[in-house]
Amino acid sequence: MTDSLDALKAKLQQFVDDRDWSRFHSPKNLAMAMIVEAAELVEHFQWDTEVESRQLTAEKRLQVSHELADTFVYLLRLSQVLDIDLIAAANEKIALNGEKYPVEKARGKNNKYTDYQ
Amino acid sequence: MTDSLDALKAKLQQFVDDRDWSRFHSPKNLAMAMIVEAAELVEHFQWDTEVESRQLTAEKRLQVSHELADTFVYLLRLSQVLDIDLIAAANEKIALNGEKYPVEKARGKNNKYTDYQ
Amino acid sequence: MTDSLDALKAKLQQFVDDRDWSRFHSPKNLAMAMIVEAAELVEHFQWDTEVESRQLTAEKRLQVSHELADTFVYLLRLSQVLDIDLIAAANEKIALNGEKYPVEKARGKNNKYTDYQ
Amino acid sequence: MTDSLDALKAKLQQFVDDRDWSRFHSPKNLAMAMIVEAAELVEHFQWDTEVESRQLTAEKRLQVSHELADTFVYLLRLSQVLDIDLIAAANEKIALNGEKYPVEKARGKNNKYTDYQ
Repeated sequence: MTDSLDALKAKLQQFVDDRDWSRFHSPKNLAMAMIVEAAELVEHFQWDTEVESRQLTAEKRLQVSHELADTFVYLLRLSQVLDIDLIAAANEKIALNGEKYPVEKARGKNNKYTDYQ
Repeated sequence: MTDSLDALKAKLQQFVDDRDWSRFHSPKNLAMAMIVEAAELVEHFQWDTEVESRQLTAEKRLQVSHELADTFVYLLRLSQVLDIDLIAAANEKIALNGEKYPVEKARGKNNKYTDYQ
Repeated sequence: MTDSLDALKAKLQQFVDDRDWSRFHSPKNLAMAMIVEAAELVEHFQWDTEVESRQLTAEKRLQVSHELADTFVYLLRLSQVLDIDLIAAANEKIALNGEKYPVEKARGKNNKYTDYQ
Repeated sequence: MTDSLDALKAKLQQFVDDRDWSRFHSPKNLAMAMIVEAAELVEHFQWDTEVESRQLTAEKRLQVSHELADTFVYLLRLSQVLDIDLIAAANEKIALNGEKYPVEKARGKNNKYTDYQ
């Protein structure tokens, strides 16, 4: 069984190589491209209430899935060109966050990112 | 063999459940959190030249890997609360991009996102 | 009487010249710096409800004013290096938006940016 | 003589009142809208070299001026709904930055935002 992320990264590398786009894919440029895609996702929710953002129509959900995918693709490209293992980095960061926000203190609090930092 | 992304998503869900944070994790809020993390990544490269951004010190590379991980975590959370299959969405979007930027026309061109759209 | 924006722009130019920072202030870099500051503002509101975001403590309001100021400074720098008259550009854009969102159709609708585009 | 910024703010308030959009203009929503516009500006430069970003065609310069204007409009709206004096806030922040980056230490250095913070 092939790991889903490895298969996707291989496909992405092929896509970029076919178009000779590596020269444009500096980390600086890819970080810009990634935040632009993240903003297209934010745009879908900017005038929604939180409740509305949880109840998407099928059409909006499809558009949102495309923006998520675009952000994901640039995130993967960044991890590729920087040779960073994304899964390992996420596991490491989640462990750090677990220490920063211990269950007994963080439970049910939305002020976690200001009071605890 | 467990798929790496599935294992990470299960761990993330547990992290959120342990802290009772689901109530704050509306798509609207998660999209905001994701772009904030993406910006922390951009910050690392804002005064770098493109060449410098390809040659990170070990210390900066570690910091960048943490920002990448944070962005990834919120991306995964968004896909979880919206019940979107991230791998399937990425494959679908790459196929669409392949039609939008055919190899023979897009090869080696950095104006792809303005002239071809 | 000196116009407030002109006075601020003159001060900013002096600040940059004193530090010989013009060389780093390409539009590409300034756009990155501006979105990073905009994200620091977003961060203050990401876990707030909309109601909470309208009722800031004095401390949070001061922090928010600093992030607004930082975003504004980079916006002004961009207008300086690109030689764009920000006031004229805003007036022009507001006129265009007035045509795009006529009062009788847009009144009280939060779907304006999706249905009317 | 009317101050240019005051005149623009009065026009903006009228625009919003005419459409009854105040209800959607919570600081949370306006911060999201502002970063979305900032990202549209970033998009114009993401594949440009720094040199290219300093040499815009007339057409691209016009598009960039519209994105700058949109970002500015939401910045002004944020300052309005939060009752923050943007010019005073900018002057205060520039004074703080002057202490943080003294001329003799910061001159000609692009590592200012990492080494000095």
